[in-house]
Amino acid sequence: MGRQATKFQAGAGRTGGMADSDTVMARFDTPDIDDLPEDLQERIAEETDRAGFTPNIFPAMAYRPSHFRAFFAYHDALVEETALEREEVEMIIVAVSGVNDCLYCIVAHGALLRIYADAPKLAEQVAANHRTAEINETHKAMLDFAVKLTESPARIEDEDLERLEEHGYSRRAIWDIGSVAAFFNLSNRLAQLADIRPNDEFYNLGR
Amino acid sequence: MGRQATKFQAGAGRTGGMADSDTVMARFDTPDIDDLPEDLQERIAEETDRAGFTPNIFPAMAYRPSHFRAFFAYHDALVEETALEREEVEMIIVAVSGVNDCLYCIVAHGALLRIYADAPKLAEQVAANHRTAEINETHKAMLDFAVKLTESPARIEDEDLERLEEHGYSRRAIWDIGSVAAFFNLSNRLAQLADIRPNDEFYNLGR
Amino acid sequence: MGRQATKFQAGAGRTGGMADSDTVMARFDTPDIDDLPEDLQERIAEETDRAGFTPNIFPAMAYRPSHFRAFFAYHDALVEETALEREEVEMIIVAVSGVNDCLYCIVAHGALLRIYADAPKLAEQVAANHRTAEINETHKAMLDFAVKLTESPARIEDEDLERLEEHGYSRRAIWDIGSVAAFFNLSNRLAQLADIRPNDEFYNLGR
Amino acid sequence: MGRQATKFQAGAGRTGGMADSDTVMARFDTPDIDDLPEDLQERIAEETDRAGFTPNIFPAMAYRPSHFRAFFAYHDALVEETALEREEVEMIIVAVSGVNDCLYCIVAHGALLRIYADAPKLAEQVAANHRTAEINETHKAMLDFAVKLTESPARIEDEDLERLEEHGYSRRAIWDIGSVAAFFNLSNRLAQLADIRPNDEFYNLGR
Amino acid sequence: MGRQATKFQAGAGRTGGMADSDTVMARFDTPDIDDLPEDLQERIAEETDRAGFTPNIFPAMAYRPSHFRAFFAYHDALVEETALEREEVEMIIVAVSGVNDCLYCIVAHGALLRIYADAPKLAEQVAANHRTAEINETHKAMLDFAVKLTESPARIEDEDLERLEEHGYSRRAIWDIGSVAAFFNLSNRLAQLADIRPNDEFYNLGR
Amino acid sequence: MGRQATKFQAGAGRTGGMADSDTVMARFDTPDIDDLPEDLQERIAEETDRAGFTPNIFPAMAYRPSHFRAFFAYHDALVEETALEREEVEMIIVAVSGVNDCLYCIVAHGALLRIYADAPKLAEQVAANHRTAEINETHKAMLDFAVKLTESPARIEDEDLERLEEHGYSRRAIWDIGSVAAFFNLSNRLAQLADIRPNDEFYNLGR
Repeated sequence: MGRQATKFQAGAGRTGGMADSDTVMARFDTPDIDDLPEDLQERIAEETDRAGFTPNIFPAMAYRPSHFRAFFAYHDALVEETALEREEVEMIIVAVSGVNDCLYCIVAHGALLRIYADAPKLAEQVAANHRTAEINETHKAMLDFAVKLTESPARIEDEDLERLEEHGYSRRAIWDIGSVAAFFNLSNRLAQLADIRPNDEFYNLGR
Repeated sequence: MGRQATKFQAGAGRTGGMADSDTVMARFDTPDIDDLPEDLQERIAEETDRAGFTPNIFPAMAYRPSHFRAFFAYHDALVEETALEREEVEMIIVAVSGVNDCLYCIVAHGALLRIYADAPKLAEQVAANHRTAEINETHKAMLDFAVKLTESPARIEDEDLERLEEHGYSRRAIWDIGSVAAFFNLSNRLAQLADIRPNDEFYNLGR
Repeated sequence: MGRQATKFQAGAGRTGGMADSDTVMARFDTPDIDDLPEDLQERIAEETDRAGFTPNIFPAMAYRPSHFRAFFAYHDALVEETALEREEVEMIIVAVSGVNDCLYCIVAHGALLRIYADAPKLAEQVAANHRTAEINETHKAMLDFAVKLTESPARIEDEDLERLEEHGYSRRAIWDIGSVAAFFNLSNRLAQLADIRPNDEFYNLGR
Repeated sequence: MGRQATKFQAGAGRTGGMADSDTVMARFDTPDIDDLPEDLQERIAEETDRAGFTPNIFPAMAYRPSHFRAFFAYHDALVEETALEREEVEMIIVAVSGVNDCLYCIVAHGALLRIYADAPKLAEQVAANHRTAEINETHKAMLDFAVKLTESPARIEDEDLERLEEHGYSRRAIWDIGSVAAFFNLSNRLAQLADIRPNDEFYNLGR
Repeated sequence: MGRQATKFQAGAGRTGGMADSDTVMARFDTPDIDDLPEDLQERIAEETDRAGFTPNIFPAMAYRPSHFRAFFAYHDALVEETALEREEVEMIIVAVSGVNDCLYCIVAHGALLRIYADAPKLAEQVAANHRTAEINETHKAMLDFAVKLTESPARIEDEDLERLEEHGYSRRAIWDIGSVAAFFNLSNRLAQLADIRPNDEFYNLGR
Repeated sequence: MGRQATKFQAGAGRTGGMADSDTVMARFDTPDIDDLPEDLQERIAEETDRAGFTPNIFPAMAYRPSHFRAFFAYHDALVEETALEREEVEMIIVAVSGVNDCLYCIVAHGALLRIYADAPKLAEQVAANHRTAEINETHKAMLDFAVKLTESPARIEDEDLERLEEHGYSRRAIWDIGSVAAFFNLSNRLAQLADIRPNDEFYNLGR
């Protein structure tokens, strides 16, 4: 057979042979954590303590320290000042990231969804197609909205918000659903711009 | 909060509350295996022995015994008379199923890809976006072709086949790549027509 | 005028000058029928007898004898074990092939549709746009479903099947509608992969 | 079986049962030819003499006499002051109408293409997919351009015109190619707005 | 910084450095007005008198005098024999041109819309997204229809026309709405083919 | 004529009659500025001083004070720590917002682009179609990238970044281009979720 060997070695390179298990992001140099401003070092240390490893999004976003600060401030705001349960936030993230085909966000937030919802199969279901996921009608409506705001934001009309209200969501909760979906339309594109690699640990968390 | 409880009970229903871990397919009655023609019963018994459980595609396809026979005959032909390695076949299946957003095929063949390629992270990478998967350039070209044949078959031109030849694939191998991609454009749609549910076992095989 | 002559000679070549009236498929070598396994030779002889010529799909699929057997076994199952009239099967095929822009299937099954429905204008109408074809509301609903399963299979929901039931289709008939549509999402892609050429005879049959 | 009879009677109604072989357009009242301004009556008489029947586009466009005059003046300009052969004009029309799924234009101009190119199979090939039609590379490039201008006009760039020049088309011929494609983006939409029905005669002309 | 200066000089070139404020169209030679047939010279003189400058569409279309005559005859018919108010005609034009991303038509007809509707903000609203424009429900329905006929003409069905009737539009008005939308699917593509440049004057008219 | 009056009164309502010149956002209640946390009041006062009016994005985002803080911190980071000129930032914003059809961002940042680039026609050109805007090849490449990251982020590949490097952009500048594009994929969706209305002042600034 004329083509090169097809075996998959452990640590075999991604396209171009650059990425392996130690790669944070494939398209930009990762900053040395020791050289970062102190507040970034502290946040990274905290996250590393919490997770037991350093999720790659943290050193990646440190490429521009001012971007790092704003990005995580926004993320924190979305999970702290919200009418949504944390597992609802993660469902939205995985659905949006599935539509946008973003590997890092599907894998990292898939792990968080498994953990927060205590539902080991849910992440793969929602990432594949939220319409066939094992969720109730209320969450189906929530994800229909998040997916529409992702795929065709210019077509959002008043009726779309009213449909969510019929499912019991307040206007304030609708703001939060839309904000999480919108924020991950940012996050997905950053991860895809830089080709941020999911840490190996994420693949198995919460199973 | 006005909406119904958001907790995820074990076995909580899919949309409409119909599907749980015992559901084979959500939209058609599953035939009783004891009532099936003998050759179907035998094939199902063999598959159950091999896997340790009965993959839901088998009882689902038995809805029409003549369809069952032809479907698995085609599947068997594609993995038996081929210029491709088995892990290549499974990579194509997962990439095509990812593009088509087919839950059953992503989960079931994701398990097979992990096993045949001995690569526990590969299935999620290929299902999310083959362009950021940890594969070599040859397989990247193979999946580019399979994805194009899936998304815009009318735009396949001679140059697309020539590009695969430059990567070392023979014409015969190109037939096989295209045939696997084409067959899963059938399989995905059958699974989506019937809403065939992945067996719980598939989610964790090969990790 | 600087460009080459624009006249259309009989038998003038397709792009690249390769295809003419004798070409079976433009991108793969057609096997010599005498070298094929006996069961393939028999099937081809039967089809040639029935049609008065050898439809190109038969020698094309013989490129891989095991694929030939499975492909036609599936095709036969779809027209033999079905709740649909044969002209309904052909309507679905032509509609799906029109959406996928598959020349071979539009021309070959267009001929069959003209014959089975005894409706000489129907094939061109359904291939162009089933929404403006001279068909009744029941068949319009059937083709709406087949086209949706072709264009956006991940968006099929329970309501789509219920709409067909309102038009009098049983669940079993819905399985058959979906299976024909799914199978031609395979067939179209094989014909487009290989650039299978419609036999000249098909263009005029049934007019 | 619960659904209504599936046979196709001669003259069976289109969706809604309105259209039959005598219908000019399904969504607007056709004006009485005797009531039309004299110049329209004359043009219609001429066309009827030439074709042996009255192509439905003429009485349909007479719905607004001022539109009739301008529409056919434009059409006449496109075929009279042009660097293109008439069969090239008809090829562009059929390709554009195929992309837009316009039944009237595919059938009526398919007939003209068969006649002007003296090529009985060409219309169905170009309507299905110009990429697999039996045409030379020059015409392939011409249709690539017409199809791009139809599908994604905002993406036309200087390089697209330069590619046509490499195939021997003058700038003036490119204007004509683009103008025919643009005009049928108008014509297709008028025919689809009104659901103009192709005359029965068109289906068989030139075969 | 390694890249060339980023300042925007007055009159700085478009891509390729060809276009400036005097450019009529970037891809074809503009005919010398003195060399044109007398009727074209007269029409151009009239338009120049009316506007105070020569809108570039006039010298551009004079590239083919027969096309010029037919194009403006059609345009005149659409604004003269119509059930629509002139500001409705211009709203449709701007909405369609916005969907097609046609710079010339957005800018030139945006000016006309501001003037005829006496609404200085309306053009930018309708060009961006008619769904969030400050228009009433009747005009929203009118533009929904024009946009659908632009984006997916093959999906227009009887129900679309009936919805307009519910908003008070007669069939004759619907013909006119559809005709304006269809004509600007022609006009947009001509302007995009030739890269016709909006005159500087249009940007500020009616503000 | 059966439909309601078509005149456009000053201040006439948007769809549903809700929005007028005083509306901040059509779908959520705007918070009373006096009730906001002091840091928000201060930022709003500063912005009002600078612009001479209060851009609606500020009271809109104050719907969730924690979101307000993070959103503007990110925005500030993008314009303060960057390898891009401010007019380049605004060009990216207008191009992305044009693709996403976001009225607020097109109008508000269109004004900023006119001002920072000192180019009164540029905003409408870039919003309509960056491919026909009067920009140099370097900026054309920059906007090609921003638009691709917006429309099909999963298709970004190494070659896309390399093309920007060929135009003189450093990796660091590419990060900034991508980050601005990504952030406005968030901002556009927030504005579309809430239907934030552009202040009247923005329409004319910088002309």
